Amino acid sequence: MKVVLDPVHGYIELDEVVQELLDTPQIQRLRRVRQLGFSNLVYPGANHTRFEHSLGTMHLASMLMKNLDSIDEDKKLEIRVASLLHDVGHGPFSHVTENVIYKYTRRRHDEIKEILGKGEIKEILKKYGIYPGELAKHVEGETSLGQILSSEIDVDRMDYLVRDAHYTGVAFGVVDYNRLINQMSFHEDRLVVDQGGLKAAESLLVSRFWMNTSVYYHHVTRISEAMCSKAVEHMIEDGEMDPFRLRQMDDIDLIAAMRSSKGYGGELARRLDSRNLYKRALYTGLEDAGKGVLKHRDKIERAEKEIAELAGVDQECVLVDIPKTPEMLEMKAMIKTDHKLVSLNEASHFVSILQEAHMDNWRMGVYCPREHCEAVGKAAKEYFNIKKVTKQFKLSDLENTKVQE
Amino acid sequence: MKVVLDPVHGYIELDEVVQELLDTPQIQRLRRVRQLGFSNLVYPGANHTRFEHSLGTMHLASMLMKNLDSIDEDKKLEIRVASLLHDVGHGPFSHVTENVIYKYTRRRHDEIKEILGKGEIKEILKKYGIYPGELAKHVEGETSLGQILSSEIDVDRMDYLVRDAHYTGVAFGVVDYNRLINQMSFHEDRLVVDQGGLKAAESLLVSRFWMNTSVYYHHVTRISEAMCSKAVEHMIEDGEMDPFRLRQMDDIDLIAAMRSSKGYGGELARRLDSRNLYKRALYTGLEDAGKGVLKHRDKIERAEKEIAELAGVDQECVLVDIPKTPEMLEMKAMIKTDHKLVSLNEASHFVSILQEAHMDNWRMGVYCPREHCEAVGKAAKEYFNIKKVTKQFKLSDLENTKVQE
Amino acid sequence: MKVVLDPVHGYIELDEVVQELLDTPQIQRLRRVRQLGFSNLVYPGANHTRFEHSLGTMHLASMLMKNLDSIDEDKKLEIRVASLLHDVGHGPFSHVTENVIYKYTRRRHDEIKEILGKGEIKEILKKYGIYPGELAKHVEGETSLGQILSSEIDVDRMDYLVRDAHYTGVAFGVVDYNRLINQMSFHEDRLVVDQGGLKAAESLLVSRFWMNTSVYYHHVTRISEAMCSKAVEHMIEDGEMDPFRLRQMDDIDLIAAMRSSKGYGGELARRLDSRNLYKRALYTGLEDAGKGVLKHRDKIERAEKEIAELAGVDQECVLVDIPKTPEMLEMKAMIKTDHKLVSLNEASHFVSILQEAHMDNWRMGVYCPREHCEAVGKAAKEYFNIKKVTKQFKLSDLENTKVQE
Amino acid sequence: MKVVLDPVHGYIELDEVVQELLDTPQIQRLRRVRQLGFSNLVYPGANHTRFEHSLGTMHLASMLMKNLDSIDEDKKLEIRVASLLHDVGHGPFSHVTENVIYKYTRRRHDEIKEILGKGEIKEILKKYGIYPGELAKHVEGETSLGQILSSEIDVDRMDYLVRDAHYTGVAFGVVDYNRLINQMSFHEDRLVVDQGGLKAAESLLVSRFWMNTSVYYHHVTRISEAMCSKAVEHMIEDGEMDPFRLRQMDDIDLIAAMRSSKGYGGELARRLDSRNLYKRALYTGLEDAGKGVLKHRDKIERAEKEIAELAGVDQECVLVDIPKTPEMLEMKAMIKTDHKLVSLNEASHFVSILQEAHMDNWRMGVYCPREHCEAVGKAAKEYFNIKKVTKQFKLSDLENTKVQE
Repeated sequence: MKVVLDPVHGYIELDEVVQELLDTPQIQRLRRVRQLGFSNLVYPGANHTRFEHSLGTMHLASMLMKNLDSIDEDKKLEIRVASLLHDVGHGPFSHVTENVIYKYTRRRHDEIKEILGKGEIKEILKKYGIYPGELAKHVEGETSLGQILSSEIDVDRMDYLVRDAHYTGVAFGVVDYNRLINQMSFHEDRLVVDQGGLKAAESLLVSRFWMNTSVYYHHVTRISEAMCSKAVEHMIEDGEMDPFRLRQMDDIDLIAAMRSSKGYGGELARRLDSRNLYKRALYTGLEDAGKGVLKHRDKIERAEKEIAELAGVDQECVLVDIPKTPEMLEMKAMIKTDHKLVSLNEASHFVSILQEAHMDNWRMGVYCPREHCEAVGKAAKEYFNIKKVTKQFKLSDLENTKVQE
Repeated sequence: MKVVLDPVHGYIELDEVVQELLDTPQIQRLRRVRQLGFSNLVYPGANHTRFEHSLGTMHLASMLMKNLDSIDEDKKLEIRVASLLHDVGHGPFSHVTENVIYKYTRRRHDEIKEILGKGEIKEILKKYGIYPGELAKHVEGETSLGQILSSEIDVDRMDYLVRDAHYTGVAFGVVDYNRLINQMSFHEDRLVVDQGGLKAAESLLVSRFWMNTSVYYHHVTRISEAMCSKAVEHMIEDGEMDPFRLRQMDDIDLIAAMRSSKGYGGELARRLDSRNLYKRALYTGLEDAGKGVLKHRDKIERAEKEIAELAGVDQECVLVDIPKTPEMLEMKAMIKTDHKLVSLNEASHFVSILQEAHMDNWRMGVYCPREHCEAVGKAAKEYFNIKKVTKQFKLSDLENTKVQE
Repeated sequence: MKVVLDPVHGYIELDEVVQELLDTPQIQRLRRVRQLGFSNLVYPGANHTRFEHSLGTMHLASMLMKNLDSIDEDKKLEIRVASLLHDVGHGPFSHVTENVIYKYTRRRHDEIKEILGKGEIKEILKKYGIYPGELAKHVEGETSLGQILSSEIDVDRMDYLVRDAHYTGVAFGVVDYNRLINQMSFHEDRLVVDQGGLKAAESLLVSRFWMNTSVYYHHVTRISEAMCSKAVEHMIEDGEMDPFRLRQMDDIDLIAAMRSSKGYGGELARRLDSRNLYKRALYTGLEDAGKGVLKHRDKIERAEKEIAELAGVDQECVLVDIPKTPEMLEMKAMIKTDHKLVSLNEASHFVSILQEAHMDNWRMGVYCPREHCEAVGKAAKEYFNIKKVTKQFKLSDLENTKVQE
Repeated sequence: MKVVLDPVHGYIELDEVVQELLDTPQIQRLRRVRQLGFSNLVYPGANHTRFEHSLGTMHLASMLMKNLDSIDEDKKLEIRVASLLHDVGHGPFSHVTENVIYKYTRRRHDEIKEILGKGEIKEILKKYGIYPGELAKHVEGETSLGQILSSEIDVDRMDYLVRDAHYTGVAFGVVDYNRLINQMSFHEDRLVVDQGGLKAAESLLVSRFWMNTSVYYHHVTRISEAMCSKAVEHMIEDGEMDPFRLRQMDDIDLIAAMRSSKGYGGELARRLDSRNLYKRALYTGLEDAGKGVLKHRDKIERAEKEIAELAGVDQECVLVDIPKTPEMLEMKAMIKTDHKLVSLNEASHFVSILQEAHMDNWRMGVYCPREHCEAVGKAAKEYFNIKKVTKQFKLSDLENTKVQE
């Protein structure tokens, strides 16, 4: 059996169907889609790709299923293949282009079913007797077995947490996944963690918390991604890019297209290339912003326009970024004790309080070129009716001193 | 310059005075005093000694002082030597014998001053112009510089947390100590952590929390240590051991003495050797036990006697273990921001809630031979007036499934 | 002081001049130049860049100079800056385009002097009183201090060996560089390793040997790089690319240009994108090929043309790859003993025999599309007058089973 | 299933029979027998025990057998149990006492059969239907399956190489054992390594070579062990110790006995406790000593006596240490290629030359108290007819500078 060497998991075995699928252009494209979008602008080692993550996810799914005797070999094959293919529908820079693609094409994850049902992948699946529709359901977590791949504690997030930690160098991204996987099983169609895996599950939550604050929510990443996303919108509006082609692109295609854009896309490409990024005109938590601010999440463009007007700057110069309130889905994983099932945050006081600390990490941001920060910040506070921005000693504030600004 | 290879820190440099001190019998004895007492009965790799910990502490102290230009070379030498010698007063099995020694000799840490002031150590210190009294003060954290060695966040606990993690295999014992050390400095006689080290300080707290629940408070360790401690008391009472000699012994002396004891000490030695340990007759948290139970901490012997009577068993068969309520001293470390000093638990919401979770780990225990567990458990509940023992899904309960019982 | 987190070395400190240089487009471009060219087609984790390597090299240079008290602070600054900038002249995919650029522009490393002497870099250097010409000499190893950066055992190769190991996952790429760096010093203008660092130096050689056989000489990498290099040549010949612009490109520019090529460049781009690579028609060592084959190194094109004719295939289909005979420069590093200087391979029998084993890894190769392998292989043997290809159990032969073919 | 946490392999699963065997005094005793004798006097972290090594060996045997479908479950159980018990016959400080025990009791490994056939172990084996005689054969490598545990490349040496590396901190002790184990299988009753595991097998040889030079042959270890061994002999001769009891002792028993010895044993105990060791009066390789010196291996006592006389010192002061010429048994492991079986040193040129380098590490030594070194060295050279001791720059000579002398 062929193997491939992965710096995270060591040797990963590739059976025949996996070898054939790896050779399709759809999977090879993932070699050129970075896992963490623009996080490498903060953590220079974070250049890893969806390709390795796909291999790693398949590897963990295989490990998990080794202990589950009740599953048919056919079904195990399906899950293994689904793990390998689960990210095949991702656009360039992963999540960065997701919302733009949806905005202009009104198409989202159903795409995966379409990709699996055509071309070389279709032929290979047919040869091995696997139905694309069933695969797509597994990927979406709509089947019972699909929980292995997509649920509160699944092999997808196990792989990316530990992988992202390896490439960023963040020490606490460690997850005791060997232990966790050995303690998982199905209990009446529910994928659960046995009580012997409680501590390993907690380690996953610590890792999640730590990676959120250090990496996933880092303001420099958020700014870069907002800039890239805005550039693509402009190129679509200006007729420089076909939104329906976007999902088939890789990172190279997108950057090359942006560089050759004559408009705003080109300007932002030059900024991203030279790391000449927008800065934070406003950056604040929920206490200061008030819960009402969340209602603006579907009126971002209007906010950008009006803040620009108030500040007397071009609309292109203002990016508004209001994320959903954070949740750590993993907390809802079920722990199986001698007597009953309980959710992880019930089983562990430690986990329950992590959620509390996690809420503190939420920030809304308004970004613009450095020279407009004062004017835009003032306008944004006025627009969102924010009285003051408290200078509290919070994790993500202090952390900004820690990496390249 | 000579070096010695340490599995935790790599090469550790030994300057002349350190080399000479290492050759004294007092330091060589630490090679035969295990760092974690009986924790190796739970974590079989935990056989490391006070000797390596002393070297590691000295190494971290040197690293920390490299960045502190304002300290005289003379003073740096003092602190380095104090770090090396800080555990020279520990009895066999480290903390296990501490209380017994105090009970029968009424002597505690002041011992360190005495040890430093005689024999070969005295001669070496004299040769290098170091005063034993000053050293002792550093070790006790009574000087300003002594905070490096003994304060809320000191090199002593950095070394043991990361070392204990290495030898037990507990993954989350990691501390980002390089970062932490680089961010520490003196601010008006106070050793503080610069805000850039906040996250590293948090990592220390996570490590502390994790090691507490997994290792330091593990019930098997607590039972073994209670057994050993009780054995020594009996040997002293029976005239088989001189309490004033105890502190000079190493682990080998103590075990050999216990094995040759004709009384209860011998019996417990045989039990410890064959890992035939007492079991938990009662093990419960503060909600069930009530805060009043803490008052029994200075009447342990009476409790053991009366519970034994109630249960109709020999008094030797009952061990009562009521620890202090836990605190994580590290929380009080001072963080220096642009504007002011704040304590770590104020600076970090995450840290503040760890304290909460930490309180949950407190347990009192009553231990006895397996065959008496039912009777003793019943008697203990009666004696302490405990109505019920809630079966909650708490860390340390579930964790018992994880290691050899 | 700002820091950046590196997965290999941990926190790397960035002083002011480094921060300013990092913001120049010339350094930012290195974020988009992969360190190992196409090695990620064999080791999927090998996506790291010249940018991180430059930071790492600077970090190690700083570490090394901390122990060298005799060097002026000014000179230390120069070397630090030279380390950061040493790869700024690399073209896309690092070494892959080196030879093509030289072939068409007749310009090689002198380029570095030119890059340092213009634009933003020039201004920053001027501000800090650093002369571009002096920097360039350091980079070329033409100054005494430049040996830190470019000599038999320099910080450049220390960083890339350990970094390439981290990202490929090859376990034996470990170098005990902390120890090595602590044992290096100048002895009469010669950078030498003290005898206490002998074992660490040996570890560097083992690492070098291991990385050569596993990574740097892997046939799949060699084939991909030969394909890319040939594509660029065709594009230059067809007027699709300006060879003088090539060195300023990043990987994205080059791939995008290849994809848009209408000729052979486009075809090879599609093959590389889908990992549909040429295969080995001939692959053999020096015993079989005879030393005479080395003379063909400067007549590669003629060989390709004639082999293609003999085999009756298009000339584009044949790639001939005859590397220089391998040497491990590190062997010539000087070790300083109590009495004299000796070279590493004299000081260590182990090292001297590594060179022997290393010669065995040399292979020449002739590559072509899979369907022509038989015909081309036959023709190549005829052309180079190779009687037989021995099937010996050599490292690199057997290793092919280990990774994706 | 219960698990135990091992710092080297992570969680190790313990099935029922293993749990029962772990509770026997014979296995518990191994907790108090250090794996590396007195190596902790050089590498302070090397305090690990035969107990953890036994668990690790069992773990690797289980891993290896998972892939061997043709073996009966019954037989797998036997091998697992044999792996756990394989060191149960070791005396205190492992190999240190081996020769003395044999000298005075004429009993060697057959002991293992006796231990397995009595007491609690016998009862447990009986309960699970396992024959002690069969187990003993597996341990001795006399059965086909026993090769898993005892052959050229077995799980015993895999575990100890990687474990000794972890605890000493020697970086190159790494073995790619996961890969190696996955590539091992039986080929007509011969345990072989598939060609895909060649590189992993090479990694084992590098590790072996490195550990030999750095750890196993370190002169300080050899001196300490010679001292301990000599002390025991004296105690037996003086009637202070029963040689037949020796094998049942643990390290504590032995040290305690030595400390209470009134004769030479007591003196050496005090020296070992305070690390006041003998020094090298003579230490030289085979070129200088001549092959004839090997004939003295069975006349050590006579050599010690006569050298002492020549030097005019007490016989107790002279220790002669002439080891066998070194071999690396692992080289003879069989590699299975597509066509045939070849030995590892035939399959790999690299391995074949390692043997050469390895011969260079051989040293004979004559040790005595520091003050007699000159006289004893002179006498020893005369006695062994050694003309000169070349000062070559060999590994182990230079290495002496690296660790505490």
